[in-house]
This record gives sequence, structure tokens and C-alpha cells, in this order.
Amino acid sequence: MEPKEWAERIVAGDVRVASRLMRDIDDRMPWVLDVLKELYPYTGKAYVVGITGAPGVGKSTLVDVLIERFRARGDQVGVVVIDPTSPFTGGAILGDRIRMQRHSTDGGVFIRSLATRGSMGGLSRSTSDILRVMDAMGKDIVLLETVGVGQDEVDVVNIAHTSMIVMIPGLGDDIQAIKAGILEIGDIFVINKCEREGAERMEREIMMMLELGAQREDGWVPKIVKTEAIKGKGIKELLEAIDAHRNFQEAPDRKRVFLQKSLKIELMTHLRDGITTRILGFLGNEEGLNRAVEEIISGEKDLYTKSEEILDRVLC
Amino acid sequence: MEPKEWAERIVAGDVRVASRLMRDIDDRMPWVLDVLKELYPYTGKAYVVGITGAPGVGKSTLVDVLIERFRARGDQVGVVVIDPTSPFTGGAILGDRIRMQRHSTDGGVFIRSLATRGSMGGLSRSTSDILRVMDAMGKDIVLLETVGVGQDEVDVVNIAHTSMIVMIPGLGDDIQAIKAGILEIGDIFVINKCEREGAERMEREIMMMLELGAQREDGWVPKIVKTEAIKGKGIKELLEAIDAHRNFQEAPDRKRVFLQKSLKIELMTHLRDGITTRILGFLGNEEGLNRAVEEIISGEKDLYTKSEEILDRVLC
Repeated sequence: MEPKEWAERIVAGDVRVASRLMRDIDDRMPWVLDVLKELYPYTGKAYVVGITGAPGVGKSTLVDVLIERFRARGDQVGVVVIDPTSPFTGGAILGDRIRMQRHSTDGGVFIRSLATRGSMGGLSRSTSDILRVMDAMGKDIVLLETVGVGQDEVDVVNIAHTSMIVMIPGLGDDIQAIKAGILEIGDIFVINKCEREGAERMEREIMMMLELGAQREDGWVPKIVKTEAIKGKGIKELLEAIDAHRNFQEAPDRKRVFLQKSLKIELMTHLRDGITTRILGFLGNEEGLNRAVEEIISGEKDLYTKSEEILDRVLC
Repeated sequence: MEPKEWAERIVAGDVRVASRLMRDIDDRMPWVLDVLKELYPYTGKAYVVGITGAPGVGKSTLVDVLIERFRARGDQVGVVVIDPTSPFTGGAILGDRIRMQRHSTDGGVFIRSLATRGSMGGLSRSTSDILRVMDAMGKDIVLLETVGVGQDEVDVVNIAHTSMIVMIPGLGDDIQAIKAGILEIGDIFVINKCEREGAERMEREIMMMLELGAQREDGWVPKIVKTEAIKGKGIKELLEAIDAHRNFQEAPDRKRVFLQKSLKIELMTHLRDGITTRILGFLGNEEGLNRAVEEIISGEKDLYTKSEEILDRVLC
């Protein structure tokens, strides 16, 4: 099957072909690039909502409820769950996401779990490529769930149109550090499990930090929503907040600024990734890398000199 | 001052010169490479203990108590706190780390907070370079504290000789996912705040997952330690666990395997980083990158074609 035919089938909604492509994207098969090029003209319509936060805050439950609400509106929904910490998912659905699976018989919902990782990095490239496939499939909304608060997640948040940061009351001491870091990337702050003690205090604290922090460059004033997702409480307010931010993002000038920012991240990710592949190829894959390491261990060359030497040989 | 003199001063224990170098490493000044080359022969002695875990589990308190115990044994202690989520630290000590600051008047303790981040990545390179400086300064033990569970953290854990994963009882639903992911990277599992309900159940669960999981390649059987760091409970047992793993790691054959693994990560990090710098230089820095993005936005070229085109021009 030619790349063009792959693309046509995916655009026509062939779930099997799309699944196969996504698996090969996640496995970093080189041939996928040609299909992605063909799909490119069909992309740019899906609205991506990022859902991030520490483990245990109830992100999956929120995603589950949001799927339901977006479906009720008639939206086609895609879900990408990124779980860099788990080597066991491999594209399958994790045990704790079983709840979400009740949507798997609904043809309007497409859920993928990504576990890509490895010392060579690569999380982000798979992610953005898989979002593009969902987009080409005609998904109106793609929910992008990430665990963690590292650089990967910051990048992921940067390619989502709307970023929700989910927190719960009572996580203790160093949550302050997180708050400081996510102030600039959160469009909506969700205080989930808001029946817990400390929800009001948490809301006041976030408000205070938002007031103390520098005003956001784009002028958006982040919203704070309290939810108890498991009981469906606060979800109406959450949807209103998402809609409000979407209206904001879809103003023509904003749309362009966002596109510039997210494409820049995507392009750099692709460049870094492509180069890593070529360095490994140049060195003779893992074996060559091992030989370079041996030179360093034996004391023949130090780490810094050796890395410069390789760069000089790979680059023009 | 020549690179050689910088290195000599740092090896002699000049804290001001070391601080200046670390700041410039974090700011990615190109000149630091020459100093790092000079320092290289003086490195390889420090023992690095990684402390990672979700926010709120009490990592800082544990680090604080560990500093005290290692100092009591006569060790010189370095501490590197990585906080990619906070744009406010900038090499300074965070508010919630004030406790740790009580050690700042102790000449045998050197604490640095790293906030390096940016869409071009770079966390890991600064980290490993700063560990090398601590090493050259003569620190016997370096405690490396990281927040989060992303790929950055996995890399960081891979360059620590002993990796502690800190957890607390009662974080709820998707902690299972984390446990699955960290099974392979944790040498010691610490259940902190063990006075909380559910500590015993958590211990049983970890044990069960360790038994169910594949045996570790290196043959180490991870230890589980329950602590209440704020009261100093369980710290003696934690130190025993660290010592046991250190004995294991320092067997000659193990030492070599570890060196191979960690140098490989360091080398790839340096290569990727050096290439990113050169791509940006080649494109004419941010401006050139923006021009490339404009070509994509205008539809002249798709993302994939443009990234291949740049790669073809940068690489031999």
C-alpha cells in the first residue's frame, strides 16, 4: 500500500489502518514519515486539550467524564495517554484506565496509550505525530493526558491549545514548587477531589500566586475550577472554562501566535530526533556508541573531547 | 584566568570559583567546556545518591536528614536539587528548602538548586556537568534530588549510583502506573510518612510487584524502607540500605558496567545538546527557526519535509 493510500484510508476513518500507523510511529519506523507527509494537508483542525498533574490527582476520571460530555455535544473525541513511567503499557490500556474503556465501543471515541521512552528520548515526537493522525482522522477534540511534571510534560503542554493542570488538596510541602512552575503553563487550574479538606485554602493560594506572578504574555487570566470528577461535580463549570479559553485561542491573531510556538517545538523535536538517529547510524549504532564509551573509560579521551570529536565528524 | 587555573582552584576547594562555574554551566556558556576538560581527570570518586518521587512525599526532609547523617560520618556532602518546574529558583534555594539551609554554614556541605529548562531541553547535560564539578571539589557523597517522573528523571536516576524512590501511603488511583514504571530504576523504595494509614499495604504491594516483575539484570534485589523522616524514624535502616547497595555497586565488575551505562547517557546528552546548538547556529538562531516555521505555516513546505531539508544541510 502506497503512503497516499494509507493517508486516504485514515482520513476516511479507517481505525485499523490508523492504529497500525500509530503503533509504527511509536516504534519509530522510518517509513511512517511518508504517510505523515501525505496526512499533513488534512491536519490543523483538531482542538487539543492537555490534562496534566501529579499521580493520584484523578486525571483519568476527569478524562473519562470529559469524553462523555464532549460526545454528548456531538464531538468526535480522541484521547492520547502518555505514560513515560510505565514500560508495561505498550499501546494498551492500563488497568487503572479501565473506566475509560467503557467508551471503546463508541466509534466516535479513539483512545491510545503511549509508553515511548528510552535513553535517547523521543516522547515528544511520537506524541505530536500521533496527535496529527488523530487530527487527520477527523477528531474534533483530542484529550492529551500526561503524568508528571518534567520537561517532557512542559513540551506536551506547549503543544496543547488549552492546558489544564489538575491538583488535589492536601499533597503537602513541595507542591508550592510545582505551583510556581506551572503558573506559566496552566490555562485552567482544576482542584479535583474538592470535597477534601483544604480545597478553599488551595484555591486562595493559587489565586494569590496568579496575582503575584507576572501577567501572562498572551493576556489570558487563568481560571480555577473545583471539581469532584467521580460524582460529576463541577464538570459543567470546567467545560465553560475550556470553551472560554478556546474562544480566546481561536481569535485570528492568537491562533497564529499559537501555531508559531507549537510548530517551533515540533520542528526542533523532529530535528533533534533525526540527528540522534543519524549519530547512532554514523557511530555504527549501539556498538559504535559502546566503543566511544570504552575510549572514555580507558582514559584515552575525556568525555568532552570525545563528544566534540564525534560532532565534528557528523556535522558539516 | 586560564581553564587550568579554574580547575586547580576548584579542586583545591574554592567554593566561589566552583559556584561561578556552576552558574555558567547552568547558563550554558560555551567556555565552561574547557574547564570541564581540565577537571575531568579529578573526577570519578563521588558517590551519587538519587532521590526521586512525586511532589509532596517529603524528599527535601529526607535529604536534610541524610546530609546530617553523612556529615556525622565525616563525609563531604554535595546536594543538587533539580526543579525543572520552577522558573523562580535560578540557582537559589527555594522557600520550602529553608530547612536544608541550616547546613549552609557548614563548609562540608555544598547545595545547588538547578532550574534549567527550555524548549531545547538541556536539563540532563547541566546536571551531569554539575555533578562532575561537585566530584572534582572532593565531595564524597552527592545527593541528587529530582521532582517528577518524566524522562528527564529517568535519565537522572540512571546516572545516580544508588536510586531511592520515595513514596507515601494514600496517593490513590494511578500510583500503580508509577510503581510499574519505577520498578526497574529503584534500588531502594522509601515509604515516607509511614505513620499514615496504608503504609503496610503499600509495602506489601511493592513487594508483590517486585516479585511479579522480571528479575533485575544486575541481580540486585531492591530494598524497601519505611521512614518518618521528619522525626528521624527509619533513617538508620535507610543508611544501611544505601550502604548495602553501595557495596554491591562497588564490586569491580559492577563498577565497570555502571560506568558504561552512565557514560553512554552522558555522551548522548552532550551530542544531542551540541547538535541543537549547532542547528540553531546554522539556522541563524531563533530568527532562522522562526523563518523555517513561517515556511511551514504558509504551506510552502510541510513540517516533515522542512525538517528533512534542514537535516540534509546540517549533516554531512
